[in-house]
Amino acid sequence: MIGLGYWGPNLIRNFSDLDDAQVVWCSDLSQDRLNKIAKRYPGVKCTTNYEDLLRDPEVEAVVIATPVSTHYPIAKAALERGKHVMIEKPLADSSEHALGLVDLARRVNRVLMVDHTFIYTSAVRKIRELIDSGDLGEVLYFDSVRVNLGLFQKDINVIWDLAPHDLSIMDYLLRAEPIAISANGASHAGNGIANIAYMTLRFPNNLLAHFHVNWLAPVKIRQTLIGCSKKMIVYDDLEPTDKVRVYDKGIVINGSPEKRYQTLIGYRTGDVLIPKIDATEALLRVAQEFISSIQENRSPLTDGVAGYRVVCLLEAAQKSLGANGSEVLLTDLKAVESASPTMAAVGG
Amino acid sequence: MIGLGYWGPNLIRNFSDLDDAQVVWCSDLSQDRLNKIAKRYPGVKCTTNYEDLLRDPEVEAVVIATPVSTHYPIAKAALERGKHVMIEKPLADSSEHALGLVDLARRVNRVLMVDHTFIYTSAVRKIRELIDSGDLGEVLYFDSVRVNLGLFQKDINVIWDLAPHDLSIMDYLLRAEPIAISANGASHAGNGIANIAYMTLRFPNNLLAHFHVNWLAPVKIRQTLIGCSKKMIVYDDLEPTDKVRVYDKGIVINGSPEKRYQTLIGYRTGDVLIPKIDATEALLRVAQEFISSIQENRSPLTDGVAGYRVVCLLEAAQKSLGANGSEVLLTDLKAVESASPTMAAVGG
Amino acid sequence: MIGLGYWGPNLIRNFSDLDDAQVVWCSDLSQDRLNKIAKRYPGVKCTTNYEDLLRDPEVEAVVIATPVSTHYPIAKAALERGKHVMIEKPLADSSEHALGLVDLARRVNRVLMVDHTFIYTSAVRKIRELIDSGDLGEVLYFDSVRVNLGLFQKDINVIWDLAPHDLSIMDYLLRAEPIAISANGASHAGNGIANIAYMTLRFPNNLLAHFHVNWLAPVKIRQTLIGCSKKMIVYDDLEPTDKVRVYDKGIVINGSPEKRYQTLIGYRTGDVLIPKIDATEALLRVAQEFISSIQENRSPLTDGVAGYRVVCLLEAAQKSLGANGSEVLLTDLKAVESASPTMAAVGG
Amino acid sequence: MIGLGYWGPNLIRNFSDLDDAQVVWCSDLSQDRLNKIAKRYPGVKCTTNYEDLLRDPEVEAVVIATPVSTHYPIAKAALERGKHVMIEKPLADSSEHALGLVDLARRVNRVLMVDHTFIYTSAVRKIRELIDSGDLGEVLYFDSVRVNLGLFQKDINVIWDLAPHDLSIMDYLLRAEPIAISANGASHAGNGIANIAYMTLRFPNNLLAHFHVNWLAPVKIRQTLIGCSKKMIVYDDLEPTDKVRVYDKGIVINGSPEKRYQTLIGYRTGDVLIPKIDATEALLRVAQEFISSIQENRSPLTDGVAGYRVVCLLEAAQKSLGANGSEVLLTDLKAVESASPTMAAVGG
Repeated sequence: MIGLGYWGPNLIRNFSDLDDAQVVWCSDLSQDRLNKIAKRYPGVKCTTNYEDLLRDPEVEAVVIATPVSTHYPIAKAALERGKHVMIEKPLADSSEHALGLVDLARRVNRVLMVDHTFIYTSAVRKIRELIDSGDLGEVLYFDSVRVNLGLFQKDINVIWDLAPHDLSIMDYLLRAEPIAISANGASHAGNGIANIAYMTLRFPNNLLAHFHVNWLAPVKIRQTLIGCSKKMIVYDDLEPTDKVRVYDKGIVINGSPEKRYQTLIGYRTGDVLIPKIDATEALLRVAQEFISSIQENRSPLTDGVAGYRVVCLLEAAQKSLGANGSEVLLTDLKAVESASPTMAAVGG
Repeated sequence: MIGLGYWGPNLIRNFSDLDDAQVVWCSDLSQDRLNKIAKRYPGVKCTTNYEDLLRDPEVEAVVIATPVSTHYPIAKAALERGKHVMIEKPLADSSEHALGLVDLARRVNRVLMVDHTFIYTSAVRKIRELIDSGDLGEVLYFDSVRVNLGLFQKDINVIWDLAPHDLSIMDYLLRAEPIAISANGASHAGNGIANIAYMTLRFPNNLLAHFHVNWLAPVKIRQTLIGCSKKMIVYDDLEPTDKVRVYDKGIVINGSPEKRYQTLIGYRTGDVLIPKIDATEALLRVAQEFISSIQENRSPLTDGVAGYRVVCLLEAAQKSLGANGSEVLLTDLKAVESASPTMAAVGG
Repeated sequence: MIGLGYWGPNLIRNFSDLDDAQVVWCSDLSQDRLNKIAKRYPGVKCTTNYEDLLRDPEVEAVVIATPVSTHYPIAKAALERGKHVMIEKPLADSSEHALGLVDLARRVNRVLMVDHTFIYTSAVRKIRELIDSGDLGEVLYFDSVRVNLGLFQKDINVIWDLAPHDLSIMDYLLRAEPIAISANGASHAGNGIANIAYMTLRFPNNLLAHFHVNWLAPVKIRQTLIGCSKKMIVYDDLEPTDKVRVYDKGIVINGSPEKRYQTLIGYRTGDVLIPKIDATEALLRVAQEFISSIQENRSPLTDGVAGYRVVCLLEAAQKSLGANGSEVLLTDLKAVESASPTMAAVGG
Repeated sequence: MIGLGYWGPNLIRNFSDLDDAQVVWCSDLSQDRLNKIAKRYPGVKCTTNYEDLLRDPEVEAVVIATPVSTHYPIAKAALERGKHVMIEKPLADSSEHALGLVDLARRVNRVLMVDHTFIYTSAVRKIRELIDSGDLGEVLYFDSVRVNLGLFQKDINVIWDLAPHDLSIMDYLLRAEPIAISANGASHAGNGIANIAYMTLRFPNNLLAHFHVNWLAPVKIRQTLIGCSKKMIVYDDLEPTDKVRVYDKGIVINGSPEKRYQTLIGYRTGDVLIPKIDATEALLRVAQEFISSIQENRSPLTDGVAGYRVVCLLEAAQKSLGANGSEVLLTDLKAVESASPTMAAVGG
């Protein structure tokens, strides 16, 4: 385990609970953090130099939860030492670095996984199941709000911090290729780092996705509306149990040209269903998936390519942000992707 | 009263309750609607031809609640007959028409008012009061969501239908001149009329405003976040009484360069205050303001210029919507404004 | 219409909207209230003496919304004049008076209806439908909370004011005969009139009903939990649309004696369903039912006997309240009931 | 640590985080539970026989989180061995046993503490602070609801399981001596153990307290209304941060006899304040208090007498439950209390 900031201890706890994994080394620049871990997990070795654990031949896999800018060099070193690697979201600080890791992992035949935690929540899985069942019809829009009074990061803006969650959820649920992205935002801390941002993704067939991420909001909101042609979903991650609601609501389009224009669009309002969601902690599933994919020598559900796709979107959003929200076409993304034939194979 | 659709009967009810006003004529193309009004208000004359009431010299003032495209010709005719005029939002279907009405009202020295109802709610007034008191500090962003499974209009899109509410609230609270607007949206009813849209307004000094309007949402949301430098506001119009919440939350920026970078931004979390809001119906205040401005021969709070400003924003948003969200500079707006010296006087 | 306090104008509005009814007379002791009605309904005759309208042979039916203590004499006078009578809840100020009205209405063959409004809401009807379908299983308990900062009545306590709503809902949904009632409460206004009270009704077979009514609560709560053996219901009347929720939750009792004692009771948690509830105003249905029962010469859904049952419970609760919550057996109730053979016929 | 059921592991975690405490022994009848603890805390000794740890002279203090019926014998043995003792709520299964422990602890001069966890929450402390400040005025009623689909206990009913929380909160906040208690309930699992219950406590001066505890509710509710003469409080423990709301609402009693009776009681509605509540885990404070009271050789905040008072109320409620809700006078309680002069000293 490299990096014991906010997320690292949670990862250690979950890996510790697995029968097939053993946490043997922890690394962090802060001796204070290492001491805390050592007190709670007496058997774990600690170091301020992550090279120590990369050097240890007994270490088969490495989990990286360090600041984003260090993901690439650390993951690269780990893969080169033959370790399997799981990295906190986002996978890397640039699409070039993300792609570099994907390619390297292919070459050394090691698992590269990104911790897109929400993909492993019961709520997101249930929504995917509902979409796949066809009951919801075609997805028309995806609207996501993730705001609160959050930690102002010093090295990345709010898009790189929060949007990976929502972009990975969207990517997992929609499985559609966006045409273009635009982003607007503002910085209020005097350091030029955006703390509020809005992103719009345009897709073919009038599909629209929109994201509001915000570190400077008075209340915590984590709500996603998914408008579909037959039913609609409200996914509220703050609800303790009733996270997903399926509304049997929508419009009925009557194409009959004889009818009066006013009656072309009718409304439909029916029952609301709140499906039961099981309470397994997503991070435990993340840990399990990493271990299983190593044991089974397969791509994990959230593999390097999934991480790469999200980084491409972040990068394009960043570009749009710097250009007052001008659309950035995502054809570049596909160009890069096709330049890496190995990746497509992994993605498949 | 011209136009007895959804809003007209509410206006009649409120004008009827005023001592200084008397509803004498109602006009609508539908005899059915007229009959309903006649049953409830036996003394009111009814007609399917609004010219009848314009012709009546006893009619001093006219309230227009007809489809948007008819606002201009009806209001023009009424002003030309020397009637005072109140028009449902938005004031007109184009900035040119809006400006035409403003100019005409000036020339004939009659009151021209737009029914920006929310400006008359106790909640919006309380927020303005809080901003004016200086307690909130500088406004940093304005984020508004107004979505539900609403009536799909046949002649205007969701921006023209719902955004006038939020734009007028923003205009009233912020009193700042936006630099540019961009809008994205989609149409899902097969008629090319956007039923979901997002708008971003860019202002000087990193002030940002954003709007989500949506006719195809499974739930009703009417929530505005107003982020300020000292405190922040959540305005939830669906709360029966606790509509405005003032959060003593924010960040503290420590400019001391000696301190480590991480500590430059601190967090502040204090009490939440829900100020008492009185329960007077906004529409009654609208009716009162129209009557009072006539009696006092003055500009109403929401005069033609306020209506014009909102129409300019709607028009620019529409333009951006047709150009995949490209920013539309609002310098044009100011150019037009300065071309009309009389209006500035009214606005002052 | 006799009595133009809080509820009277709502009744007038709804009766006015009916095709088969015409509001011809209004009576109230306050000339001020009469003037307001006269302004809005110019055709209606007004009087401060309700005898005027009882004397009018054109008046076929009378609606009484006066203070509770006057229900009996006014209704008696109206029935004796041959008018059909609808009375605001509670039917009368004592079981003796309630029974007197039931008997009198039978003798003069006129409709006697009590306005138990909630019985006519779509939510309560939907719950009854769910219970009747058998999907919920057996009802185990009924827990009702109706509290807010309400008007302190001067002539009746909070039980007589608020509990008729909940008792009538319970009576309609459970259709079970309670064994005993107990009530506790307190008076904080220095006048000895209880402003907070709790009532418990004991039924055969471990069925329990409990009521909390309160005029001195900081928040408005109108929530009923209905625990059943298969599913459970939360009925929240303050929800704008999602008033009824059906929880597929409960316990499974495993009677197998071989199993370890701990596993005798298992838990079941499934989906939640929020059925669609139509939005018809209950009071319109009340008005329709009164008119229809007159036209069809039949007992209305909430007839005098239903009103009598509720008054009996109120009276017994009052008795218990005066005895520090000692249980009052409701066998007395049945004794009285059987003393009135005609009522049973009506009830049946 | 004796007893590793639901609560035990939480206690271990919090004691482990204290600098002045070391968890040296764990005891539970289940080897499986012991193994789980041993995996997470490798240094802790485990045993299925709690005598092992009582025998260890290095053990200074014992925490007991076993089934209620075993509290007395285990705590007695521990005190007799000279250990300080903290016991999960409720302190014991009878007032006699509770009193026995209080007396024994006095004799051996050891700390006896009961884990009334809620007394250590920031929310309850804030409410006490508000009451003590005088801002709320006199407390008029205390209404508590604690319901959910909870674990059906096999040895105790819902009152003994859930009500200790609410009774201890009430005892801490009100510091008033109740006159009498009554309780009603029902058992739906066929084993005669009540799973739903209502309790009413009568105090002098029209103060009323009421409790609803329920294992068979479809939703989780943990809400307490505290009505006071000047302001009122809603304490909702399920709110993540805004747990306490102070409503500036109430009635104004105008005693002037000249005024008309209707105007004797006026309404007051003002702002709502949600005070900031700090987020310290209550159980950490519980652990700290136990250690501190040992170090400082003093009574802990929730001492044996506090535990005894709650057990007396539970016992009286149980008695009333068996008598169809007949009031049980609490004078017995005081009689017992005065029979134990030492306890009064501890209580002071």
